[in-house]
Amino acid sequence: PSDREGAAGGTQSSHRLLAYSDALLSIIATVMILPVAHTKVHDDEELRESVQLLLTTKIAVYLMTFLIVTVAWAAHIRLFQVIVRIDDCLALLNLACMMLITFLPYTFSLMATFPNNILGILLFCGCVMVIGVIQSLIVLYAFSRPFLLNEQIQISEHQTFYRHHILKVIMRVPIMCFFASIASLIAFQLSYVLLAIVIFLPYISQCLKWCRNKAIGQVEETPDSMLFYTYLPNEPLSKDRVEAFSDGVYAIVATLLILDICEDNVPDPTVVEKEFGGNLVFALQVYGPEYLAYFGSFATVGLLWFVHHSLFLHVTKATRLMGLLNTFSLAFVGGLPLAYQLTHEFPRNSQNELEAIQISCVIIFFAGIFQLAIWVVALYSEQETLHPYVRYGGREHVFMLAKLALYPCVALVTFFLTCILSKFSTSIFHLMEITVPVAFLVLRLLVRVGLALLRLIFCPDRPDLRTV
Amino acid sequence: PSDREGAAGGTQSSHRLLAYSDALLSIIATVMILPVAHTKVHDDEELRESVQLLLTTKIAVYLMTFLIVTVAWAAHIRLFQVIVRIDDCLALLNLACMMLITFLPYTFSLMATFPNNILGILLFCGCVMVIGVIQSLIVLYAFSRPFLLNEQIQISEHQTFYRHHILKVIMRVPIMCFFASIASLIAFQLSYVLLAIVIFLPYISQCLKWCRNKAIGQVEETPDSMLFYTYLPNEPLSKDRVEAFSDGVYAIVATLLILDICEDNVPDPTVVEKEFGGNLVFALQVYGPEYLAYFGSFATVGLLWFVHHSLFLHVTKATRLMGLLNTFSLAFVGGLPLAYQLTHEFPRNSQNELEAIQISCVIIFFAGIFQLAIWVVALYSEQETLHPYVRYGGREHVFMLAKLALYPCVALVTFFLTCILSKFSTSIFHLMEITVPVAFLVLRLLVRVGLALLRLIFCPDRPDLRTV
Repeated sequence: PSDREGAAGGTQSSHRLLAYSDALLSIIATVMILPVAHTKVHDDEELRESVQLLLTTKIAVYLMTFLIVTVAWAAHIRLFQVIVRIDDCLALLNLACMMLITFLPYTFSLMATFPNNILGILLFCGCVMVIGVIQSLIVLYAFSRPFLLNEQIQISEHQTFYRHHILKVIMRVPIMCFFASIASLIAFQLSYVLLAIVIFLPYISQCLKWCRNKAIGQVEETPDSMLFYTYLPNEPLSKDRVEAFSDGVYAIVATLLILDICEDNVPDPTVVEKEFGGNLVFALQVYGPEYLAYFGSFATVGLLWFVHHSLFLHVTKATRLMGLLNTFSLAFVGGLPLAYQLTHEFPRNSQNELEAIQISCVIIFFAGIFQLAIWVVALYSEQETLHPYVRYGGREHVFMLAKLALYPCVALVTFFLTCILSKFSTSIFHLMEITVPVAFLVLRLLVRVGLALLRLIFCPDRPDLRTV
Repeated sequence: PSDREGAAGGTQSSHRLLAYSDALLSIIATVMILPVAHTKVHDDEELRESVQLLLTTKIAVYLMTFLIVTVAWAAHIRLFQVIVRIDDCLALLNLACMMLITFLPYTFSLMATFPNNILGILLFCGCVMVIGVIQSLIVLYAFSRPFLLNEQIQISEHQTFYRHHILKVIMRVPIMCFFASIASLIAFQLSYVLLAIVIFLPYISQCLKWCRNKAIGQVEETPDSMLFYTYLPNEPLSKDRVEAFSDGVYAIVATLLILDICEDNVPDPTVVEKEFGGNLVFALQVYGPEYLAYFGSFATVGLLWFVHHSLFLHVTKATRLMGLLNTFSLAFVGGLPLAYQLTHEFPRNSQNELEAIQISCVIIFFAGIFQLAIWVVALYSEQETLHPYVRYGGREHVFMLAKLALYPCVALVTFFLTCILSKFSTSIFHLMEITVPVAFLVLRLLVRVGLALLRLIFCPDRPDLRTV
């Protein structure tokens, strides 16, 4: 590519541009959890009521933002799987695009706070339309300089078809947004419906197509193995970018609580002097629960990252469906610090504390179970997507299952234990927090012992079926 | 390495562990700018006084945190340049290490708020000692499984020497911290001195060694081209990790303001109803300056990232000195959102506004000039560190210089213009914000025109000396 670099006046590998975009997008995806986390749940009212209040607006905004940013991220991946090299102009256009994407969460906040006001919708639609125009510019620019494109498309004779198809897919969203903004002038409810359709349209149309094909047996005509912009569940998804985006989300979420602690939990010197007689240790003991919440959530998020890391180490190709499940897992991970913070905010053995602990367990369970689901989906097409070691019968298969199943199982057990022994819920929860890291350290040993036991019980005559 | 993977029961490439560590460290390095940014500068008092107040505590904490985290990051790079493959156990130990590093900023906050109380120092020293012990464990574990090590060390016959040397370097810091914590029980000023020595010791000792060698002409004896843990300015520094860390810092800093906007700048529905007669547009106009500050800082940080990206694209090997200059540049970048926020917080044409704009210019200037310095340092050993295109006389040399010099020059010009035409300072600043992105887009053209003009003026008889 070095002679090309000359010819084009400085084309570059896109790797770092994508890493930076992933970092920006992962921050933006998780940022709306902050307003949720900063909502003070007062001790006197019941947690259930507060949670309901939160659920209606702030959590909805968080989930909507997470959804829309991951959709934008998926579109960005698609685009830069087609365009594999960049130059200065593309880099600058991409930055402009990122600037607008990072503004989207704010429009959601406006929509949630003023559901009857169309300004939020108009702002959102405006941003999306400009993003669409910039992305179309990027596509046109890249197709006018074919050395920037993917090898497969570069040598393809259907280049014009590709360009047309990609532009059509990209422009669909801003055009729908244009109609939504016009609709909002007539009836704002209509525009919400239109926006919902925009997001789910590709999946719906793909489902309909699939059903029709199954029913009639007709196969869609696309030229020479159309690989990109198909919206099929097995469409390839850049594994590097899934990892980079996930790393960003895990890193932000792991440090969310320390941001708060550094800012809010440094006592005022005058208060320390007055109330604690100048004894800083006593003054800091008030914040004990916060520290505990920080270390607990850091450890949990870190270990969930560790499981994710172990899984993707053995994934050879990521598909769109795996990416979707990963997104669901990450959305729950984003809620973890909030849940941990709640567990330590209430007096011991109160109903609120019990519920907070149970919510934490539920969140951990879902974050873990979606990771497990990625693996299950990968196993369905294991020849393509998995390393031989972790396929059925592979050497690391059982060990990987144990790694992925550990957190969901522990969360489930903790949940039911706290239901039965509600008096000891805090102790059970803390015990869980301490044992899980140790369990991960000795997991290989545990699996080996477990397998040996199973073998001893069920088939004592076949000594060496599998080794971990 | 796939057969090794089998032998070791799951050794893995360390790439993603390092990327995740870089993400965590870059967040932590920049987090202490938040308390600075959230300090409200009131309109009635003079900016100068408030800035002095900020400087004494919060900015000091920010810079200290940035310094200590980058030192920890450099130590982490060193360690994982020696250990190039990991397994589950190392990954978990590294996560434990990260958890303690992310807690360090809080100990700094305590030190800054209670300078006479030894608790902050004790906590800091405690954390550093535990980190040192964990890192020693990592080294011992890795040397007991040599297939995890760097090829060069794996085949070296001085492996024991390496292990000894690395352990010595690592343990130096916790041992000094141990003494500092004992010293703090006697006189807390002494422990601050000790801690300062810890950080600068390697550089001081290296300087002394270098001076002695220059004076006596004696050369240090180290076995077969000791590459790591030398503290020489040309010691290699993983380029990937410099990029990953910088990307993280740029991404966090670019989004710092939107975090605040999403949380604080959504007006209360009741206020909108009462004060603005339900007109949301009027209500949002109050926040106009904040949006402007956001877009301005995002664009500036994005473009500084773009320059950094262009530079490191042509860097073939990063050295420790380049890493140090990069750190200085990043420390200034971290202050940018704060400066931009200040520029829009004061009434038009007030003395405060002028000073805020000038501070912004100074920060942009230093962020840019340190980037330029990286290039200058790289040029000193261009055979090793730079791509032929950007070396002296290379085709992209002048273009790269223009890219790197654009921001410092513009900041300098803006600064002096605001000094002379202080009445129009805001307009000049906004004009600068708008022209710079455009300038970057057409920079190649500008450079070409500039060179042609220069050629026309100075040597009209030699038509084609260089082409850009």
